[in-house]
Amino acid sequence: MRKSLYMNILVPLDGSGDSQKALLQACDLAKNYQANLILVYVVEKSHSLNLLDRKEYLEILRKFGNKVLIKGKQTAKNKGIDVTITMKEGNISNEIVKLAKNKKCNLIIVGSKGLGATARFFLGSISNKLANNSPCSILIVK
Amino acid sequence: MRKSLYMNILVPLDGSGDSQKALLQACDLAKNYQANLILVYVVEKSHSLNLLDRKEYLEILRKFGNKVLIKGKQTAKNKGIDVTITMKEGNISNEIVKLAKNKKCNLIIVGSKGLGATARFFLGSISNKLANNSPCSILIVK
Repeated sequence: MRKSLYMNILVPLDGSGDSQKALLQACDLAKNYQANLILVYVVEKSHSLNLLDRKEYLEILRKFGNKVLIKGKQTAKNKGIDVTITMKEGNISNEIVKLAKNKKCNLIIVGSKGLGATARFFLGSISNKLANNSPCSILIVK
Repeated sequence: MRKSLYMNILVPLDGSGDSQKALLQACDLAKNYQANLILVYVVEKSHSLNLLDRKEYLEILRKFGNKVLIKGKQTAKNKGIDVTITMKEGNISNEIVKLAKNKKCNLIIVGSKGLGATARFFLGSISNKLANNSPCSILIVK
């Protein structure tokens, strides 16, 4: 059997509708290519947050990320696909690139807006960083 | 039969190794999704060229584009895939977006560097413009 074009597909989630769309397209591709699907939520830590309680804020993000990942896993399960979920902390694009390398991903699938549920990351920023630094192809889903 | 995720896939070619890689990935996806593949070369006309003979320069680009398209068609044929080829003139990203809309494309596949054989278009520029303006998903191939 020939090697599949996409063996490991990484989908960074942020809880937005756009990342949900990306996930659905990822499920379709994973099914077609019998690829492993990895869902990741990155708790953004690179900004120097001017918050009274940074610790509490990060805790909220972690809880939110956990919900997003569980929901993503359920979405994939409904499509008949098993996924691996993981949470990272740090700079979003750096963490995604690092994970893509570690997991030998052939494809990263992101929504066209986001990442960052608060729309901190406009398209150009995240897609550019990823496209420049990622070790693999990137699909920007509309 | 359910509607395929990708019915019409557009691949802008520029004669670069990166656009060739994009084409190969497009062939794989087209086969998997039984999608129509459209190859386009855009003769860049939006820059005010400071050339003594603009007409001759454009003629050279047209000839080059023709070769690139014929070669692309042959590459796809070797993979068992029939493609439609077309040449456009104007602003590269505008023409790609226009064509994607006209042909109801679900996916545009581009190389991570280019477009523009002369590397006039660095990644951020073209991928950003496309990602912002395209009516469909974009796959940036590495």
